[in-house]
Amino acid sequence: MSQPLSLINQSRCFGGTVGFYSHPSVSCNGLMKFAVYLPPRSRSEPLPVLYFLSGLTCTEENFMTKAGAQQFAAKYGVILVAPDTSPRSAGIPGEEDDWDFGTGAGFYVDATEVPWRSHYQMYSYVTQELPTLIAEHFPAQPDRQGIFGHSMGGHGALVCALRNPDQYRSVSAFAPIVASSRVPWGQKAFTNYLGADQEAWRSYDASALVLTTQLKHPILIDQGTADTFLEKQLMPQVFEQACTRSEQPLTLRMQEGYDHSYYLIATFVEDHIRHHAEILWR
Amino acid sequence: MSQPLSLINQSRCFGGTVGFYSHPSVSCNGLMKFAVYLPPRSRSEPLPVLYFLSGLTCTEENFMTKAGAQQFAAKYGVILVAPDTSPRSAGIPGEEDDWDFGTGAGFYVDATEVPWRSHYQMYSYVTQELPTLIAEHFPAQPDRQGIFGHSMGGHGALVCALRNPDQYRSVSAFAPIVASSRVPWGQKAFTNYLGADQEAWRSYDASALVLTTQLKHPILIDQGTADTFLEKQLMPQVFEQACTRSEQPLTLRMQEGYDHSYYLIATFVEDHIRHHAEILWR
Repeated sequence: MSQPLSLINQSRCFGGTVGFYSHPSVSCNGLMKFAVYLPPRSRSEPLPVLYFLSGLTCTEENFMTKAGAQQFAAKYGVILVAPDTSPRSAGIPGEEDDWDFGTGAGFYVDATEVPWRSHYQMYSYVTQELPTLIAEHFPAQPDRQGIFGHSMGGHGALVCALRNPDQYRSVSAFAPIVASSRVPWGQKAFTNYLGADQEAWRSYDASALVLTTQLKHPILIDQGTADTFLEKQLMPQVFEQACTRSEQPLTLRMQEGYDHSYYLIATFVEDHIRHHAEILWR
Repeated sequence: MSQPLSLINQSRCFGGTVGFYSHPSVSCNGLMKFAVYLPPRSRSEPLPVLYFLSGLTCTEENFMTKAGAQQFAAKYGVILVAPDTSPRSAGIPGEEDDWDFGTGAGFYVDATEVPWRSHYQMYSYVTQELPTLIAEHFPAQPDRQGIFGHSMGGHGALVCALRNPDQYRSVSAFAPIVASSRVPWGQKAFTNYLGADQEAWRSYDASALVLTTQLKHPILIDQGTADTFLEKQLMPQVFEQACTRSEQPLTLRMQEGYDHSYYLIATFVEDHIRHHAEILWR
């Protein structure tokens, strides 16, 4: 049976359509929102789907309004899907207190700790519920999925791809948190969502996961050298070393002078969409 | 003597730099902000300057974050400058009360009425103070200026160009208010900023101005057919008729299905920047 979906609004964009939707989520036990860009080609044939996971404080809107990605989705023939970054108004005490935890900061994990576990099931939402919904309602090729993201969403994209190598054919990231167990943002989130036992954190740490999983295709990462979070929160060299150890092909591009903002994403998003499209259309 | 300018922040973008600045404005009697995009070529040679005037509720940020214009400024070799849409925190009673008047809604006029005239001198700010500042601080070719804008800013761009045909070589607009004296947004603003005498409004009404001024180059306008403001506030046919009467070349493109949002701008901004660059580089 088809799940209900409400269209909030939509706009024509580069010949296609940006739409914003809400729906009652089973995983997250409440209303969730996401955005979809359907390129012109989707009117005549089903297309691969490329998921974008956003960073801390973002909603389903940021990527669609700031990344300039639609022109390249139209050019390379992929559907773009951008979910929200957490449940909202879940009614959990303290959910709005921090900008880097709770609302806007779901970290793409399935929380196991009270009180978060009642709603914060973003890993299941992104990897299972949302793809099912997309396949039901949009002209998608469900067997051709890629995933990318920014910062916390880069972490999410790498984790989703490394844990589901058959589901996601392609993966890339902008300034991702690659060693979430070892940096303050990740440690704060994981302690609260997953508990103090760090063994449970490994299944959400890209640098740990890549040691035991190999992807068929290379991973692309762009990281700005002027990113103020580079040394303390992002540490791409940890992921690079892990990829070397496990012989996972990685293209890590240190982009001179770029910071952590959407201007990094806008500048290199064509490279990323081309990277995905070349793999997804094989 | 050079005017003081403070850099608020800057980001690398498409090989160039987006910078946000503030400065004490003489025209507006207080602090004003604007954004500048310097493309890579500006490091080796001075470039033409293309001003973008934003619409109601916008700041100097919207165009730089949402339009995706930098890639095309880099491609075609023009500097982009986006001022704020009004003075802020001027201390005028009621300045924050309305979304379509006062703060965020300067309408690019020099107010003559109390209390607005003490600060709301956006026409002088945009056409005189800001270009002087840009010429002093950036690698600009001050004799090669173009101007474009969106909605209220499309009105501003047309008015600035039609009143200063030697200063602005090129002009274009997205969904502009072309007959500001005849529509609710313009009538509200003009009554308060300029007074009840509608004769004073003519010098800020593009459809009136074009009857007595002819520009050397064609005007380009993109207007979405699904724009909810089309019939009541925008009325491009009024401007089209005036251009026909005065033999002013106009390319008015009615874009099927597009609305009033930045997705219209993002989709067609390359066409606009190319339109300006081709004229500015002659």
